[in-house]
Amino acid sequence: MYKPATIKDIALALHLSPSTVSRALRDGYEISEETKKLVVAYAEKVNYKSNPIALSLKNKRSYSIGIVVPKLANSFFSQAIAGIESIAYERGYHTIITQTHDSTERERANVHHLAQRSVDGLLISVSAETSDFNFLKTLHDDGLPIVFFDRIIDEIDTFKVTSDNFKGAYNAVESLIKAGKHKIALLSNSPHLSITNERLSGYMKALVDNHIPFRSELIRNCNKGGNDYQEVEDAVKDLLHMPEKPDAIFISSDRISISCVRALKSLNFNPKEIAIAGFANSDVVDLLYPSLSYVKQKSFEMGQIAVEMLLKLIESKYPITEFETRILDTEFHLSPL
Amino acid sequence: MYKPATIKDIALALHLSPSTVSRALRDGYEISEETKKLVVAYAEKVNYKSNPIALSLKNKRSYSIGIVVPKLANSFFSQAIAGIESIAYERGYHTIITQTHDSTERERANVHHLAQRSVDGLLISVSAETSDFNFLKTLHDDGLPIVFFDRIIDEIDTFKVTSDNFKGAYNAVESLIKAGKHKIALLSNSPHLSITNERLSGYMKALVDNHIPFRSELIRNCNKGGNDYQEVEDAVKDLLHMPEKPDAIFISSDRISISCVRALKSLNFNPKEIAIAGFANSDVVDLLYPSLSYVKQKSFEMGQIAVEMLLKLIESKYPITEFETRILDTEFHLSPL
Repeated sequence: MYKPATIKDIALALHLSPSTVSRALRDGYEISEETKKLVVAYAEKVNYKSNPIALSLKNKRSYSIGIVVPKLANSFFSQAIAGIESIAYERGYHTIITQTHDSTERERANVHHLAQRSVDGLLISVSAETSDFNFLKTLHDDGLPIVFFDRIIDEIDTFKVTSDNFKGAYNAVESLIKAGKHKIALLSNSPHLSITNERLSGYMKALVDNHIPFRSELIRNCNKGGNDYQEVEDAVKDLLHMPEKPDAIFISSDRISISCVRALKSLNFNPKEIAIAGFANSDVVDLLYPSLSYVKQKSFEMGQIAVEMLLKLIESKYPITEFETRILDTEFHLSPL
Repeated sequence: MYKPATIKDIALALHLSPSTVSRALRDGYEISEETKKLVVAYAEKVNYKSNPIALSLKNKRSYSIGIVVPKLANSFFSQAIAGIESIAYERGYHTIITQTHDSTERERANVHHLAQRSVDGLLISVSAETSDFNFLKTLHDDGLPIVFFDRIIDEIDTFKVTSDNFKGAYNAVESLIKAGKHKIALLSNSPHLSITNERLSGYMKALVDNHIPFRSELIRNCNKGGNDYQEVEDAVKDLLHMPEKPDAIFISSDRISISCVRALKSLNFNPKEIAIAGFANSDVVDLLYPSLSYVKQKSFEMGQIAVEMLLKLIESKYPITEFETRILDTEFHLSPL
């Protein structure tokens, strides 16, 4: 069993009392310089570290931040985490990362585990499956600092940061319309997520503003958020088999965008016949074939803003009662096809 | 400041003594059923959880496993983590994930933070930058269970699991030779990594076995492991400007493979002129253009094996002194081009 060196071990080895060792390590005035040197040198040799868990029980500060995301394989989240880390490390905080695989049960377990292991605060992007946020609300009411990013929720009043999902979707759909597409289908994520509904609104508003009637039969929900490829392929196949098949597909979620590209490829569909545009933050989105137009979120920046907000909550000497929700612009990249 | 409910809080609220509350929660025989019900109901209401950190100080078991990987944005690692989690959660362990961005300093900080926060063991794939492993050796000598996966090291005697990197490289290079390529360049990762040298050996052996002379001028090291795109583009450009330019490129690292695809695309290089094959576990490797042949590692399975090994170390009642290094086969996928 792993057992880091303790003050007792050092005391025993040097034939000193534990309290002398402890005071020497804290540079106490009552200890001779010689003893201090000896203790410090030995402590370094045995890789002694003051126990941060015991410390955190006393000080109620652990200098670690818990991160809860749905899926690390989704580039958006690994980019946001890199942004979080870029600030956290500089400010002396460690990050502890967990993923929920979009499962409510896993999300609860991760959040409780982090809270109980004394993280100073939580950064969370909620799971697609979760609709009841009482477990988070309770922790938040108990005083655990929480900041939501990307997939934010209304139920808890705190700092939040997300993308302008409405405008991101609006711009993408409008560009499809300008390219002459008029039968634009929508592949959508779980309706539990705030971002799903905002992107749906953007899609609908772009149609209305351009005098294209909204047709509900062109909408397909992929409730498993692209975690289940078959669900997406079935939806795409279904759309392509409609009597009046769509001339474009807009996709309102990262992983569904990638699955849609894969479906079109495996169905041997001519990419010139159907234009696709979707939210996608993959590092290789510009190398995919069939190629797609994509809405890219400022993931790294979002992570940075989220952790700045959290550190404000953690380090504030007074309770903060006024919160802000930051909305970041998205970037649209038109595919050359 | 976040403060979870304590036994004292419950005692105060219910006008009971803390020891009565504590015994009631432990289902002690000396407490009446009525009191037990009351205490349990109230504890649930205030979301009381026995403090696992205090518990871990007593029991020396935290039921959490630390994972240290170079880069979450590398699909290989997110896949391996999914494999780790698939077993860990079932066995009642939480996972705490950290990434090093291939920096030695970050790696040390992460490892120490995890060890000090009482993880029961560590799963680690080492950073490309690290050449001195004494910080790990000290922890291991102190009794912290450590298992290495993918990027393993010789310096520490423990369980390890990696891919058959030699054979993976050998097969890929041989298939390029069989496709008629005879001037095969190599883009290689940091020479600090065991996997780099194994893949280099596989490349060289395939050449020798097929009577193709080894030419060192066809080898380019990308020491930043694909974290620096420009380094890879420069190397590719350099190869393409050789008087006798190569007819194929073999790439011995995931991220360098992707960067090489990007470089060939941005240099507008005709993919028919130069064949590429590389290690790549990206979820979308089959959707990339220019397309590449790829060696895929059994990442999910490797994660599962690594965590099984670690749990064996953690849960063994007796010290384990005989260790195994498992070597997993790779899969080769020939590009249709």
